[in-house]
Amino acid sequence: MRVVALAGGVGGAKLAQGLQSTVGRDLTVVVNTADDLERHGLLVSPDVDTVMYTLAGLADREQGWGLAGESWNASEMLARYGEETWFRLGDSDLATHIVRTYRVRGGELLADVTLRLAAPLGVSATVLPMTNDRVRTQVRTDDGWLDFQDYFVRLRQEPTVHEVRFAGIERATVPARVRGELGYAEIVVIAPSNPIVSIGPILAVPGMRELLAAARRGGSPVVAVSPIVGGRALKGPADRMLASLGHEATALGVARLYEGIIDLFVVDRVDAGLAPEIEGLGMKVLVTDTVMTDDASRARLAGGVLESAAELRA
Amino acid sequence: MRVVALAGGVGGAKLAQGLQSTVGRDLTVVVNTADDLERHGLLVSPDVDTVMYTLAGLADREQGWGLAGESWNASEMLARYGEETWFRLGDSDLATHIVRTYRVRGGELLADVTLRLAAPLGVSATVLPMTNDRVRTQVRTDDGWLDFQDYFVRLRQEPTVHEVRFAGIERATVPARVRGELGYAEIVVIAPSNPIVSIGPILAVPGMRELLAAARRGGSPVVAVSPIVGGRALKGPADRMLASLGHEATALGVARLYEGIIDLFVVDRVDAGLAPEIEGLGMKVLVTDTVMTDDASRARLAGGVLESAAELRA
Repeated sequence: MRVVALAGGVGGAKLAQGLQSTVGRDLTVVVNTADDLERHGLLVSPDVDTVMYTLAGLADREQGWGLAGESWNASEMLARYGEETWFRLGDSDLATHIVRTYRVRGGELLADVTLRLAAPLGVSATVLPMTNDRVRTQVRTDDGWLDFQDYFVRLRQEPTVHEVRFAGIERATVPARVRGELGYAEIVVIAPSNPIVSIGPILAVPGMRELLAAARRGGSPVVAVSPIVGGRALKGPADRMLASLGHEATALGVARLYEGIIDLFVVDRVDAGLAPEIEGLGMKVLVTDTVMTDDASRARLAGGVLESAAELRA
Repeated sequence: MRVVALAGGVGGAKLAQGLQSTVGRDLTVVVNTADDLERHGLLVSPDVDTVMYTLAGLADREQGWGLAGESWNASEMLARYGEETWFRLGDSDLATHIVRTYRVRGGELLADVTLRLAAPLGVSATVLPMTNDRVRTQVRTDDGWLDFQDYFVRLRQEPTVHEVRFAGIERATVPARVRGELGYAEIVVIAPSNPIVSIGPILAVPGMRELLAAARRGGSPVVAVSPIVGGRALKGPADRMLASLGHEATALGVARLYEGIIDLFVVDRVDAGLAPEIEGLGMKVLVTDTVMTDDASRARLAGGVLESAAELRA
């Protein structure tokens, strides 16, 4: 069963791990790169790395980002040189950014570099960026437009977001490898990532929605898992961001964003009562346990999602 | 007493530390950059960093290069990604290369970047590169031309060197800050570094010999300390390199290379017998203990060199 997942960082990485434990090498994860940034001249791809490290079993689970057992000596020296180090980069993690940076600067496509990074870490799935092009999420707050990581990390998601834009998105294209994998996909899964700033940019890459529509026309369902459970984001500012942007901060609010794009929406048992209204949007609903606390619950959710999706194919 | 020292790596750094302990902020060290290299897309300046770390009291004294108490996690991760790691870069040290690289790529002059790196480490002397331009030492061996660090680190200086060239030297210029400091210099000291591949490139930067000549005409002596003691280099391949390039691998052989450039040559007591012949080259000779084993001997040699040089001014 060839599966393509669209994912952001932590929540997406968890479901991706569950999917990998179920379909192994038949999984491709297409990851948001709109919250990439440059730090100290290095190209950092936070979501790609979170997915890659999680799939490799190397992620720091408590922290939710970075590598387990990381040291911070380079960061301390960078601080000594007067560099801003609010975006913390561990020593081992730095190697990833160093290799990515010089290969991309040397002319390699980000997709090829990403494949080359994931393989030696022991990732069996195929991890790909949503685009090889430079796209940068910016959010408008009371203090004007901010780069995403400025808002997300430096300001700890405290400012209210009034507007979101993906700078460069109109010139971005879907990488050939992503087009190919979506062509082969039997099931497409939209992971429980922030629908605005994680899944939003992926769907906004010109051509991406058409590729999902083509998959559906070919009989391959598109399934999304709600990142909002009981009106709250399990991690991150998705609930507040939905509300401040005029959406309902519920699974229903997320379902509305995916209306016309997906066949099946997966909500948590606590949101079972929303099922009728979500079905009214023209999609099926799967009610199940969606909170992933450990490897077993990741695998269980992934298995349930794939099973329900496979039924739609039949 | 304003002093300018010309220096390579370890030996040069030791004398520079002795000079700094004597004249403090009045010391400027002009450092060889012809053995700089790119590793993993990062610009590494081994001699500049050795001088900088030594003057900051942060150097790993046993190893002779790098920072004391260094960790190697990024290097292990780089190896995992398939990168060649024969040129070992510690985690804290990486911060230096990262900052240098992105500032130079961003258009800052190497001299300005070097000043900006040394200051927060607590270096009181002024550390400057011999040029802001790209110069690369290459050595011809039985296997053809090799980049210097390929020969020096990867092949552990084992091949015999038949010829040396400094690629790019003809287009290099002396940085304005170096011209200025040489203009103010009351004494110029050529450190006991390899005369072929450490001091050689510095003297080969177009305009550098003229600046030394101008200092001498202005009454500021140029003094060199022999890196060869009793026919042997205290560190590195200088003795074998002198021999294979047709020079005498003695203090006299080094003095011949500096003929017409210096006023005073400093040799170790074990080489006192060479003094008459060296004086025959048209330079004075100071015989003293030149082996620097600790801070005290570094300061003692520096003090003796400055004292003898000052007498030449009087």
